[in-house]
Amino acid sequence: MRVEIVAIGTELLLGQIVDTNSTAISQRLAEAGIDCLYQTRVGDNLERIVSVINIALERNDAVLVCGGLGPTQDDITREAIALVMGVGLQLDKAIEEKIRAMFVSRGRAMSANNINQALVPVGAKTIAQTKGTAPGLICPVGPKVIYAVPGVPYEMMDMLVRSVIPDLVSRAGMTSVIRSRTLRTWGLSESALSELISPRLEALDVADGRTTIAFLASGIEGIKVRITAKAESSEIVDALLDSEERELKNILGEIVFGVDETTIEMAVAKEVVRLGLTLSLAESLTGGLISARIVNIPGASNWYRGCVVSYASDIKHELLGAADGPVVSESAAIGMAEGVRKVLGSDLALAITGVAGPESQEGRSIGTVFVGTSSEMFGNRAIQLRLPGDRERVRQYATISALDWLRRILSGGAPSTGLD
Amino acid sequence: MRVEIVAIGTELLLGQIVDTNSTAISQRLAEAGIDCLYQTRVGDNLERIVSVINIALERNDAVLVCGGLGPTQDDITREAIALVMGVGLQLDKAIEEKIRAMFVSRGRAMSANNINQALVPVGAKTIAQTKGTAPGLICPVGPKVIYAVPGVPYEMMDMLVRSVIPDLVSRAGMTSVIRSRTLRTWGLSESALSELISPRLEALDVADGRTTIAFLASGIEGIKVRITAKAESSEIVDALLDSEERELKNILGEIVFGVDETTIEMAVAKEVVRLGLTLSLAESLTGGLISARIVNIPGASNWYRGCVVSYASDIKHELLGAADGPVVSESAAIGMAEGVRKVLGSDLALAITGVAGPESQEGRSIGTVFVGTSSEMFGNRAIQLRLPGDRERVRQYATISALDWLRRILSGGAPSTGLD
Repeated sequence: MRVEIVAIGTELLLGQIVDTNSTAISQRLAEAGIDCLYQTRVGDNLERIVSVINIALERNDAVLVCGGLGPTQDDITREAIALVMGVGLQLDKAIEEKIRAMFVSRGRAMSANNINQALVPVGAKTIAQTKGTAPGLICPVGPKVIYAVPGVPYEMMDMLVRSVIPDLVSRAGMTSVIRSRTLRTWGLSESALSELISPRLEALDVADGRTTIAFLASGIEGIKVRITAKAESSEIVDALLDSEERELKNILGEIVFGVDETTIEMAVAKEVVRLGLTLSLAESLTGGLISARIVNIPGASNWYRGCVVSYASDIKHELLGAADGPVVSESAAIGMAEGVRKVLGSDLALAITGVAGPESQEGRSIGTVFVGTSSEMFGNRAIQLRLPGDRERVRQYATISALDWLRRILSGGAPSTGLD
Repeated sequence: MRVEIVAIGTELLLGQIVDTNSTAISQRLAEAGIDCLYQTRVGDNLERIVSVINIALERNDAVLVCGGLGPTQDDITREAIALVMGVGLQLDKAIEEKIRAMFVSRGRAMSANNINQALVPVGAKTIAQTKGTAPGLICPVGPKVIYAVPGVPYEMMDMLVRSVIPDLVSRAGMTSVIRSRTLRTWGLSESALSELISPRLEALDVADGRTTIAFLASGIEGIKVRITAKAESSEIVDALLDSEERELKNILGEIVFGVDETTIEMAVAKEVVRLGLTLSLAESLTGGLISARIVNIPGASNWYRGCVVSYASDIKHELLGAADGPVVSESAAIGMAEGVRKVLGSDLALAITGVAGPESQEGRSIGTVFVGTSSEMFGNRAIQLRLPGDRERVRQYATISALDWLRRILSGGAPSTGLD
């Protein structure tokens, strides 16, 4: 089963946005064992879209068109597919009603052009919308098929996983399985990681080639080590992944903070919940970034109290009660942690202060960061970090480094200084 | 002059890397006024690369192939281009010497396969390497041309700017310039915007087609209205952009909060600084997101005091002094704003409370949000919002809606309810 991805949008051709949709779709297709041998991007032009879909249909079994399903005049994917199929468009009353109902439920007036989204090529099936207004399409063309999904990433991904891939797999009567598993790490640079893992890379090279390893530096998400296995069944693939995960965890030890979708804040949350504690934060240079990540965790309201962003220095001293003296220091970090623990009434507190730039502060250079914690269970502790990069990157690294340090303390491991 | 970009690499088709090269090339082509109407990605397979280049050559004046020029067995771009041209490959002795010399100068042994990089299709010119080993290629095919550049981004960009674009411009006898300008808006849905602007779209359609308008929903960044103009000189393009910007601002009024890179927090900051105020925040459902955006603004420390994330309800009452009663309410939003203004000592405060989900709270449905503000200058005010989407999207929309509401109050405009 061969699928070509066709991404629609003049903004792609002008370089105004990066086509991350095609990348995300490719990953999912590869994991499902479906071949994607071509990808094409074309602008909002009817004739060219039709021509690109025709070429794609000729050299593949299926075409996945992404984008151009919205309500505006430049959304012409429906029309293009109808031309390729040689059919007309008809209004789907049920979809029209759904779109109207969605606007009513949001208390918003619906402009007339939204009804365009209820037009469906004759003979096509629709993929129900759960997150937006435009439905997706499944359009048979002889023995082949054209899928259309919206260009909004979360709407696209929802339809891809829920409908397009299952449909492809059932059409293909599928075969070999490819799956990946990602170990998320913090505490070593990509090159140090790669050196540490090189014996495994060599061992896999001389083995049967069914398992491969790749690295992906992902900023605030850590450095990812992705294991990919390909074999004739899910069982064998899972066994290969399990085995390699064990090997790598043995080598990497506690720098692995999570697997697959486990973020650093989830890893911290797990420890906080396990220990039955409540948490509060005091942030300076990160300005609320750590807090914003913590509240992403479902159920955080059971153990997360809140945060004081003490951006002005006097708030660190007056509201939080940090002793007078420099605010970019170990004692300020501990003082902020003790203070916020008291002010917001939590068992455990994490505090962060430092220099994000663009200028140095109190004679401390950009990237100098102090993290402190305060609790009955682990006492008062602090650590100094030296982080690379500009304002934005210092903040991102500071966020993951502070959370990773807390994770290690809570899980009883040895703290690291972030990027060794 | 029409150019198709062909990106080579199986890793692109597996979704292992994002194709940022094509985006970067598109931007440069657009700036130079060269049309790019198609982009294609294909894996390291000779037959498929040849077929893709042939199709691209048919529908364009030029093809820019990116990647597959390295020394390893899967680098087959040279061979594919020679097949398309119907010629053989010959060793370029001068390039061979340069490659050998480069290894010597780096004190590294050269593996034999590096000599493959000195193979050139008969009749092609080379683009000298200044940053790596593989030269680029300029390959005439009748009146058309194929360019090949390496996939390493800085090597690609160097050859693109130094050689490919000047060659394209001279072939085209060039001329036209394309530029874009983006108006950022908040307060109307994409479809309502499009309807409001439709007279302009029609006027532009019947005009000379040099100016076009497109929409882009960008979550927390608002809905963007992008004006693109194409003409024979920079002066005319800028005049077209100026004129259309005026037309659209007349129609859209105060929903336009910024142009190009001006974010909503920058628009708020501008008003806060203009009025000589200091700002503090109290956040509940957004958990620090608004604060994290405010601190991105250079110089925020001059006027931004800080934030209390009162995630636990009792913090809203006890630390911030909001009156007892429901916390998802107008009075709680005002109470939080008054409280944080006092606790953090600012002239102006913005507060936000509401239901992000996954469950309703105090009988209020998901997406119900109250925003409050407190200051001498504008008094105590609050507004209720009804926002669509899941937990993540409610937070994003709440952030931009709250900041936009504050912007309108500070600039003396009429507040809106967010997504009308």
